[in-house]
Amino acid sequence: MMYETLRDECYEANLQLPKLGLVLFTFGNVSAADRDKAVFAIKPSGVPYDRLKPADIVIMDYDARVVDGSLRPSSDTKTHALLYKTWSDIGGITHTHSTYAVAWAQAGRDIPIFGTTHADHTHQDIPCAPVLTDAMIEGDYEHETGNQIFDVFRQKGLSYRETEMVLLQNHGPFTWGKTAEKSVYNAAVLEELARMAYLTLQINPETPRIKDTLRMKHYERKHGSNAYYGQGC
Amino acid sequence: MMYETLRDECYEANLQLPKLGLVLFTFGNVSAADRDKAVFAIKPSGVPYDRLKPADIVIMDYDARVVDGSLRPSSDTKTHALLYKTWSDIGGITHTHSTYAVAWAQAGRDIPIFGTTHADHTHQDIPCAPVLTDAMIEGDYEHETGNQIFDVFRQKGLSYRETEMVLLQNHGPFTWGKTAEKSVYNAAVLEELARMAYLTLQINPETPRIKDTLRMKHYERKHGSNAYYGQGC
Amino acid sequence: MMYETLRDECYEANLQLPKLGLVLFTFGNVSAADRDKAVFAIKPSGVPYDRLKPADIVIMDYDARVVDGSLRPSSDTKTHALLYKTWSDIGGITHTHSTYAVAWAQAGRDIPIFGTTHADHTHQDIPCAPVLTDAMIEGDYEHETGNQIFDVFRQKGLSYRETEMVLLQNHGPFTWGKTAEKSVYNAAVLEELARMAYLTLQINPETPRIKDTLRMKHYERKHGSNAYYGQGC
Amino acid sequence: MMYETLRDECYEANLQLPKLGLVLFTFGNVSAADRDKAVFAIKPSGVPYDRLKPADIVIMDYDARVVDGSLRPSSDTKTHALLYKTWSDIGGITHTHSTYAVAWAQAGRDIPIFGTTHADHTHQDIPCAPVLTDAMIEGDYEHETGNQIFDVFRQKGLSYRETEMVLLQNHGPFTWGKTAEKSVYNAAVLEELARMAYLTLQINPETPRIKDTLRMKHYERKHGSNAYYGQGC
Repeated sequence: MMYETLRDECYEANLQLPKLGLVLFTFGNVSAADRDKAVFAIKPSGVPYDRLKPADIVIMDYDARVVDGSLRPSSDTKTHALLYKTWSDIGGITHTHSTYAVAWAQAGRDIPIFGTTHADHTHQDIPCAPVLTDAMIEGDYEHETGNQIFDVFRQKGLSYRETEMVLLQNHGPFTWGKTAEKSVYNAAVLEELARMAYLTLQINPETPRIKDTLRMKHYERKHGSNAYYGQGC
Repeated sequence: MMYETLRDECYEANLQLPKLGLVLFTFGNVSAADRDKAVFAIKPSGVPYDRLKPADIVIMDYDARVVDGSLRPSSDTKTHALLYKTWSDIGGITHTHSTYAVAWAQAGRDIPIFGTTHADHTHQDIPCAPVLTDAMIEGDYEHETGNQIFDVFRQKGLSYRETEMVLLQNHGPFTWGKTAEKSVYNAAVLEELARMAYLTLQINPETPRIKDTLRMKHYERKHGSNAYYGQGC
Repeated sequence: MMYETLRDECYEANLQLPKLGLVLFTFGNVSAADRDKAVFAIKPSGVPYDRLKPADIVIMDYDARVVDGSLRPSSDTKTHALLYKTWSDIGGITHTHSTYAVAWAQAGRDIPIFGTTHADHTHQDIPCAPVLTDAMIEGDYEHETGNQIFDVFRQKGLSYRETEMVLLQNHGPFTWGKTAEKSVYNAAVLEELARMAYLTLQINPETPRIKDTLRMKHYERKHGSNAYYGQGC
Repeated sequence: MMYETLRDECYEANLQLPKLGLVLFTFGNVSAADRDKAVFAIKPSGVPYDRLKPADIVIMDYDARVVDGSLRPSSDTKTHALLYKTWSDIGGITHTHSTYAVAWAQAGRDIPIFGTTHADHTHQDIPCAPVLTDAMIEGDYEHETGNQIFDVFRQKGLSYRETEMVLLQNHGPFTWGKTAEKSVYNAAVLEELARMAYLTLQINPETPRIKDTLRMKHYERKHGSNAYYGQGC
């Protein structure tokens, strides 16, 4: 039972997706990393959440090779693997097709930072990585999806520690965090930010972004060195 | 108890409709075929889901004649019958008035293929069959509804094996599949695709369709000969 | 316990409103008539649904005088009374502030008949009665609300037997039917029609109404002399 | 157990927020005042609702100093304190990031009074206080948020007894009332009014406000000296 704890963590985080209304059927997956063992656990492909068991969870290494488990891992596994390999301090990744986040991804637009709900979580627009080139799609597609995420972060000068979420154009969102649970939390936050921004632009299509002082005030009061949000633990 | 298994299958699939939020009151029906016996089971007309019993399910042949059962079958039965008669390898059909699918049907528009959520299920726009001619409506209306579905598939060069869903203008969606359960799954997927496409166009009315390489990549990784989505069973 | 059955009927129908998502807090009321006794039962004013008891239900006559009960009846009671007095074969009335119906009422627009979901219930647009004159508002307001409903039906040549629902401009919907339960059913149908019509116009602002043949086909197959929808009972 | 009753009142009111769909995770807080003891109870910062216990509730004075409790109070505590200090007859305050209210706040728009659902609760537009100046944000931010609320009420000539709700631009809503429970009720009403006004303008962008007679009729029948809504207790 070498990976029992990791499988349980991954299993519990996956079950949060339907509870939070973030997935229809099997349209999502969560992984959880064990940095000491240099592996991650991920949902098997196409298994409905209501039939999923902890023992079904597949253990992978960061080069996307199966380490333990008898089922086929999520078809998006290579994207997870590359993110873990490159960003060495993240512990969990979530991919969903949640409705409003997908709508922004399909529209090919970054989600503008309009308010403090957004600034409480990141001080940047949520970036939408452009659709992959034909060569990337026809090559090692899921691996290249990871590269496309790095590219948009590099090009926009973003930090994956400050902005734990991204949209892939014509596809949907990926989120990450210190733990699998935190990556699911971020997936739910992203869906809500996507919905709020959508409604905001319907009310006033000319809405400007939140101003810098308020944006950084809210980000810093929760994440800065003098943060006073939460219980400091 | 000749049709007990078939009735149970039909009953269970019908109960999924309210659970998935696809129907208000009795606005929907699911049928299930037994190809060996050349019959199908269908929900009785106007019976609320919370009072429906397996024994209420009506058994029909493909010419829409009652084979077994004491209740009147769904008023849409002739459409089901013609689809089963013509498309010999489908095993289930679902008709709903789900909100977003009906909105597209009322607007008389195909649902454009904007993303991978859509391409995971079909590589084509969801077609909207034009409203029936007056002669068809005043003739054998529900039978002609089936013909109108065949017509739009023929005219657009679609395969009912690749695109398991259609809208009828001013009416709503029909979906089908290998089993009744799969046809209900498709009804839920269609409703979500309709909602995502709606939101996408509200964010960006000029949104182009997903490009060909990504469209076919996602369709093929789930449905192609080298598919690697799911557990291959 | 002279009115026990009537109170129970009214109580059960009122409890359907929160279950169907048609009310927030106390924003709605249902009444049920006993035509033999020439009275109706109605929800007391401002009592939350989760504290409501059958004994709280107030019994009124058609001139809006309390016949039995110790609580103050719904503030909309005079509207109910006038509808019962004038339309002698209705047995139940529902008033809600359901979200989409209110939005159409606030926008001051009839709900256009775009599809068969609508035509299955009435063959007409859902009328929006104009806002009352100042004299009506400052006079016997709730009684005049009933008169405003009669006026819009007269002016548009509608039958209350065929169109069991109306919007009051800047206010919200009233629905009715043979029984209290049917009036609640109509309130839920109206809310769904309002939502579908809203979405339809967002997708295509130029959407035409459903054509006459299809409109009457669906209305007649459910309500005509040769109706074949339902179990005929 | 000096503050046990107050903590319980605050705890129960906080638990209403997720039940009413007004918060995601910890995005909200409710406080309850004890005017005799000149203190208020408030939710601790960042504690999930499903782990919150009555003993976690923090007791504060009106200058935002901790009176009793071991956890750090909500980061918005100073706004609550200033409102209690200035408006001496309010007994509860609620702050949420509910979706539609936030959308209006992000769009920087007052919520127009379009119908009787709104007029039943206040006879004024819901004001949106302008974003704070940089000096206010970089100074004592949460305290200044309270001042910004007073400012918009003063400038628009509003009474906090008649309009128990406000939006803060780029942030979200605050509501208050005689009790903590009433402030939560107002938060739910505000969210529904925000949703109805949003939909109204989507249907008809030129919708005028409700006329004065109807506006005051509904407000007075519920809140005036001759009110006849509710049970008068």
